[in-house]
Amino acid sequence: MPKIKKLLVANRGEIALRIMRTAREMGIATVAVYSEADRLSPHVKFADEAVCLGPPPSKESYLLGEKIVKVCQRLGVDAVHPGYGFLSENADFARQVTEAGVLFVGPSPQSIEVMGSKLAAKQAVAAYDIPLVPGTEEAISDIAAAKARAGEIGYPILIKASAGGGGKGMRIVDSEADFEEQMNRAVSEAQSAFGDGAVFIEKYIGSPRHIEIQVLGDQHGNTVYLFERECSIQRRHQKVIEEAPSAVVSPEMRRAMGEAAVGVAKACNYYGAGTVEFIVDENLDFYFLEMNTRLQVEHPVTEMITGKDLVREQLLIAEGEPLSFAQEDLRINGHAIEIRVYAEDPKNNFLPDIGRLETYRRPQGPGVRVDDGFEEGMDIPIYYDPMIAKLITHGESRQDAIDRMVRAIDDYRITGIQTTLDFCRFALKHAAFVSGDFNTKFVQLHFSPEMLDPVFTPEEEELLAALAVEFFEREEKRANPTRPLSPIPSTKWKNRLL
Amino acid sequence: MPKIKKLLVANRGEIALRIMRTAREMGIATVAVYSEADRLSPHVKFADEAVCLGPPPSKESYLLGEKIVKVCQRLGVDAVHPGYGFLSENADFARQVTEAGVLFVGPSPQSIEVMGSKLAAKQAVAAYDIPLVPGTEEAISDIAAAKARAGEIGYPILIKASAGGGGKGMRIVDSEADFEEQMNRAVSEAQSAFGDGAVFIEKYIGSPRHIEIQVLGDQHGNTVYLFERECSIQRRHQKVIEEAPSAVVSPEMRRAMGEAAVGVAKACNYYGAGTVEFIVDENLDFYFLEMNTRLQVEHPVTEMITGKDLVREQLLIAEGEPLSFAQEDLRINGHAIEIRVYAEDPKNNFLPDIGRLETYRRPQGPGVRVDDGFEEGMDIPIYYDPMIAKLITHGESRQDAIDRMVRAIDDYRITGIQTTLDFCRFALKHAAFVSGDFNTKFVQLHFSPEMLDPVFTPEEEELLAALAVEFFEREEKRANPTRPLSPIPSTKWKNRLL
Repeated sequence: MPKIKKLLVANRGEIALRIMRTAREMGIATVAVYSEADRLSPHVKFADEAVCLGPPPSKESYLLGEKIVKVCQRLGVDAVHPGYGFLSENADFARQVTEAGVLFVGPSPQSIEVMGSKLAAKQAVAAYDIPLVPGTEEAISDIAAAKARAGEIGYPILIKASAGGGGKGMRIVDSEADFEEQMNRAVSEAQSAFGDGAVFIEKYIGSPRHIEIQVLGDQHGNTVYLFERECSIQRRHQKVIEEAPSAVVSPEMRRAMGEAAVGVAKACNYYGAGTVEFIVDENLDFYFLEMNTRLQVEHPVTEMITGKDLVREQLLIAEGEPLSFAQEDLRINGHAIEIRVYAEDPKNNFLPDIGRLETYRRPQGPGVRVDDGFEEGMDIPIYYDPMIAKLITHGESRQDAIDRMVRAIDDYRITGIQTTLDFCRFALKHAAFVSGDFNTKFVQLHFSPEMLDPVFTPEEEELLAALAVEFFEREEKRANPTRPLSPIPSTKWKNRLL
Repeated sequence: MPKIKKLLVANRGEIALRIMRTAREMGIATVAVYSEADRLSPHVKFADEAVCLGPPPSKESYLLGEKIVKVCQRLGVDAVHPGYGFLSENADFARQVTEAGVLFVGPSPQSIEVMGSKLAAKQAVAAYDIPLVPGTEEAISDIAAAKARAGEIGYPILIKASAGGGGKGMRIVDSEADFEEQMNRAVSEAQSAFGDGAVFIEKYIGSPRHIEIQVLGDQHGNTVYLFERECSIQRRHQKVIEEAPSAVVSPEMRRAMGEAAVGVAKACNYYGAGTVEFIVDENLDFYFLEMNTRLQVEHPVTEMITGKDLVREQLLIAEGEPLSFAQEDLRINGHAIEIRVYAEDPKNNFLPDIGRLETYRRPQGPGVRVDDGFEEGMDIPIYYDPMIAKLITHGESRQDAIDRMVRAIDDYRITGIQTTLDFCRFALKHAAFVSGDFNTKFVQLHFSPEMLDPVFTPEEEELLAALAVEFFEREEKRANPTRPLSPIPSTKWKNRLL
């Protein structure tokens, strides 16, 4: 079995650092790559060797697959970990790495290709019993046939142009009475936009939950699932809070989703760590969406509840080791939540708010983990995803993990830029989140920017505090007329009042 | 059931902060107390309210029990957590707190008293089947009777003066042939030192392991054990590395020790979190040593492997809640190690080396927890225990936890003072530690200060690095005569060579 001795991490920031930490714990030497914008980054300082790929943006540095392969050859690297994003789901890059005699820490190029195409993925899983969103398998133009199929699927129905994209020729139909009219409009819209009136119809899931299953497969045909992650809290269609397990997944549903996910993995001969994404409707019926053929940003919540180091498992699998555990060895221990701390302004439609981390102090304590790639005083570069950190908490119960997260958010000190911390605190304390009754529409349904405004102005707070001191002092004097009153800072009483 | 609304933590530093974090997660307001030397400490900044008790040393501040009780009354505090050290095992303080109508987060004053006296503890546990170090129950002066008893116990034997202390009148006897002479000497030494020639004899355990059991009991008679902690790596008779579980405790031994520990707790009607300490001889026979009636410094390793927050459990028990779990619900998840990072110089007999934390950067990443009470730029005060931090790692296996700890030690950046980090790295990598075959004599047997000296001087390292660059460049040129050589920082090659 080839043991990895030197690993190049073809990524930046927190994920590069996180991967290199595990590599070092396994006695593997590490090579960082970086763009000129990242030359002072912790991931560059941490590595045993570091090579500059070029200037930002990514296409001139982190996306230069051929250059990275050359660095591997020059430095005697024997494995490449692509992290997430960048080249991580690029089958050509995986192929180039492998052809250069270097291990690619991920699945085969074929698996990446199959799951990278919606059509190929659908065809691959057809032989397995994987639930897909019900709909027509082929484009349809006959209205009577379409209406009959719609009746079988059940309303609401989504009609979408076969040649479509960008919402053109797309119609949501709530009831059979409207079907014919909407179908006619969709067909004519598709005809005029794409010159092709053929449409697909499928079940419309308006307010889905996004729940995904972590899988691990070795190169010997063993595949297990490491339970689910609930990723429904999103803004701008991007995940911002993730948790494991999900508040709504029962043991039976978990097993069914897990087995479906293993089926998807087997359908493409998958090995390595992968994630099978499902959408879940209001009846908790789940449908296969896609498979991400890489390590996921939110993988730490799975690590917290299973005790497995997913990067370690990836590296062992790449070396050809068989999985050291079976499905029945895996258990869920407690509950974990991750928030993504973005340099974004929640009051301004979550637009990036990059700049300097003037103050940067991480929360600590039992059950708190911070994965980040910055230090105090550093700039958040404009060229990349503006994620500053992932803050993860682990508790015995879901409510423990929430309480711990709120405490950790309160302890996080970031000044110099706007962040999503306040938004996350808002979401974590919201009744819908606490109850578990939420979906991907959470932000639209429950959030508006003024909710983050302080309830009182500083002047009002001062006034209330003074009133509170007065009130409690009188009360205390009434109860204990002889005891001298001690001077108590008014801001403390404010907390008591509010 | 009285819910705690405001908790005063009668302690300082890392443990005060650690307790207040859990309190905040439970929605409990926190009150810090501090000495003037600690006025800028994180535990003071973290608390909702903070009261100065007076100047250092402790007897003028942290040990002023009456003053602390008055603070409780003045601020409407409804519970006091004593942490460890200071007043934590002071039955009078516990009584004063309780009599003031404030909950004491710990056992009853009676339990503290019983376990605070070796004799009372021994008497209390007599009715339970607790293994004690074999020996005479009463003082003895008849040589023949003593010799007969020694024969039953088995050699080596320890003879110690009944009235003794400080090693006076203490003799280790290796075989029966020496017994009479040594007993005579011990008796006459005791006679001349204390005016009383009576002696005890007991089994001598020269190289014991120190293994302790964490127990939790509620106020309704339910008591469970949370497995063991191995604390044999000590310097100056103080623990410096702890781990859970122990490398040598089998499931059967664990159950036997756990049940003995629960017996000790029941013998003194214990409630709250407590630790039953055992010494373990070379045959892995274990003997009850004493019970610590408080939270232990090394409690985090138990938290990591059980998923329980021990401070949370303490607070719930103090409120009168029954334990929410039974013995059979508890499982060991992976392995955890704690090192105590002291401001001490391992090259100078571990003497305190206090001063300013010029640089202070904590390690991070999966499975790494730091409990501390300092920030960069702060001074380590001379008045208290010079512990800077507790660094805890958690891994799937013992070796994973060790590897993670070594990585975390390498990532810890502390300048300005000498610390025990290098000593801990040495110990963790030592074959005796790695194999699990060690005892409380580890430092005496295996450590000498020059072992921490770098193998090469900086000049030698430079030379070696230059040679290495030359060597690898020639090798590369031979393999690939046409490829131009890239400039590689020599320090990187040094790592490869060493």
